[in-house]
Amino acid sequence: MKALYFPQLNKYELREVRRPELQSETDVIIKVTLTTICGSDIHLIRGSIPSTLGYVLGHEYVGIVEQVGGEVRNFKRGDRVTGPPVPFCGHCRNCLDGNKTHCLNAGIHGSGIERGGLSGTHAEYIRVPHADACLAHIPEALTDEQVMFVSDILSTGYSAVERAGIKPGDTVAVFGAGPVGLCAIACARLSGASRVIAVGRADSFRLEMAKRLGATDIICASCQEPVTSIRELTEGRGADAAIEASGSEAAIQQAVRGVKINGTVSLVGISGMPVSIPLHEVFYSNININMGLADTGNIKRLMTLIESGQLDLLPLITHRMGLNEIERAVDMFEKRDENVIKIVIRP
Amino acid sequence: MKALYFPQLNKYELREVRRPELQSETDVIIKVTLTTICGSDIHLIRGSIPSTLGYVLGHEYVGIVEQVGGEVRNFKRGDRVTGPPVPFCGHCRNCLDGNKTHCLNAGIHGSGIERGGLSGTHAEYIRVPHADACLAHIPEALTDEQVMFVSDILSTGYSAVERAGIKPGDTVAVFGAGPVGLCAIACARLSGASRVIAVGRADSFRLEMAKRLGATDIICASCQEPVTSIRELTEGRGADAAIEASGSEAAIQQAVRGVKINGTVSLVGISGMPVSIPLHEVFYSNININMGLADTGNIKRLMTLIESGQLDLLPLITHRMGLNEIERAVDMFEKRDENVIKIVIRP
Repeated sequence: MKALYFPQLNKYELREVRRPELQSETDVIIKVTLTTICGSDIHLIRGSIPSTLGYVLGHEYVGIVEQVGGEVRNFKRGDRVTGPPVPFCGHCRNCLDGNKTHCLNAGIHGSGIERGGLSGTHAEYIRVPHADACLAHIPEALTDEQVMFVSDILSTGYSAVERAGIKPGDTVAVFGAGPVGLCAIACARLSGASRVIAVGRADSFRLEMAKRLGATDIICASCQEPVTSIRELTEGRGADAAIEASGSEAAIQQAVRGVKINGTVSLVGISGMPVSIPLHEVFYSNININMGLADTGNIKRLMTLIESGQLDLLPLITHRMGLNEIERAVDMFEKRDENVIKIVIRP
Repeated sequence: MKALYFPQLNKYELREVRRPELQSETDVIIKVTLTTICGSDIHLIRGSIPSTLGYVLGHEYVGIVEQVGGEVRNFKRGDRVTGPPVPFCGHCRNCLDGNKTHCLNAGIHGSGIERGGLSGTHAEYIRVPHADACLAHIPEALTDEQVMFVSDILSTGYSAVERAGIKPGDTVAVFGAGPVGLCAIACARLSGASRVIAVGRADSFRLEMAKRLGATDIICASCQEPVTSIRELTEGRGADAAIEASGSEAAIQQAVRGVKINGTVSLVGISGMPVSIPLHEVFYSNININMGLADTGNIKRLMTLIESGQLDLLPLITHRMGLNEIERAVDMFEKRDENVIKIVIRP
């Protein structure tokens, strides 16, 4: 089958690879109907997330069950499904503690052997272990594209908002207007925030999209000093919470300086290195900083929100391409050509 | 009257200063019966907490009301009282939000004009504003020495434990076995922690005191690698929570590396500079970091705990000296001579 292979740093190529087979009775094989390029793919390709090379990329997908292992009970051939980047087992210590993304028996699709060696979703077929625990049926009323983002970027934005502890009436600053930041903006509004301040680069298309998804205020980080601007918008207090979705050290520092006394900073942007936190300034403000990947146990909840009309992430899909065009798609996504936000690929 | 004056960096001297007078109808004048030297005094003297020079040091005290302003209702001459380093007003935006240490109408005793210019407690008399809001009566059953620490180091240790979210059965690592760390150890045990791991320098006296106050395990940070040792003690998981009470960058980094997935790091040690956090390592562990000064609204609760016998910090008092000896006391405290932990001064 065809798949996007990552043979060495800074290189990726569509090539013929072996079609996956069932390895365990709890596995399923899925025919991928949609996969999408993520910022993490670029981090891996450029080495800012180090990995052992030589694997198929991709970890966000929608598909149809093609084959099931003998112990799979909840899924059958032909079922339309989606699943998380980390196909969790549901019964290890970490899963049972609620930390499913840290499942001790799972790998991460498309991210190298040090993360479990699970082949990626930029392919015609994938093998998904622990299917009964981690997969989710897609409601009939929803299209593949409508649920495309539930397992990764929307889960990440939703988790960021959950960890930020947003209450109705809050003012939230969201740093980064990429796909995850945009999902966080939509989820922040959904959680009742009265004011959602989007902080992003002078990229009118993404900041326009931020408004469309619920941002009430826009700060162009390259034209204004974000911390000063946030304080001006909040009578000097600072935001109740900040969500940092860019991973840049400068934005992380602005986020911790931009929240109120006892405010919360929720970090979801991945930083590839240590970050200097101005503790000598923010210590006295009693701030709270939390961080981490998405809680991938939210997939069903997020589909409910889409079905009820409370969330609509379709505007994020700016491009639709075939698997044959995926090399060009990765390049476009990285360079942000043609006002790209998310590209969905149909194998 | 006599007071410990701080005229220039690295200098302090007992000198004659003007006795304070009532400035507002809500003030009281207190005759100090006990004051104690704190690590923050040393930070100020050495400039690691910058301040405009020329003031009386000290912010932890017990005393007797000498004179009351016309609007003071809850206190009268002769009352035995203690009060917080930040004599909060109780009615500003921050006080009403529960952030009394950030009172917009208060200064901090003995820390310079940029923090409100309130004269310090290393003196025969002090003026305390907003007396009705911030002062607390000392129960008859308790001695001055028993309640000496409620307003600062014990409040700080208690707040650290509160913010660490400790539940019965938890394993807690406390970094730093100075006065605040020791108070945190006592409060962690009080909150039901089953295992309290004290991490400190090879200073047998302080680590012995840690055991006496409730530590179940001791890690000598200069002889063992603390993160490895904590993981060995917790079957590889890491501590449920870490409390960092030293302010050192290395200890802060060990604390964030030493907690479990979804664990909490509560920072109460003051760092005078930015701190490098290994986000590239700990981001994926979904940890929570919080920080800040004590919630000084806990004074009455802490006195209740002392009266009930649940807390006893008397062992921390290793030295008792007169105000005439305070210069030598500061020197001893800084150099940790004679196994010093806390020195109480009787003006």
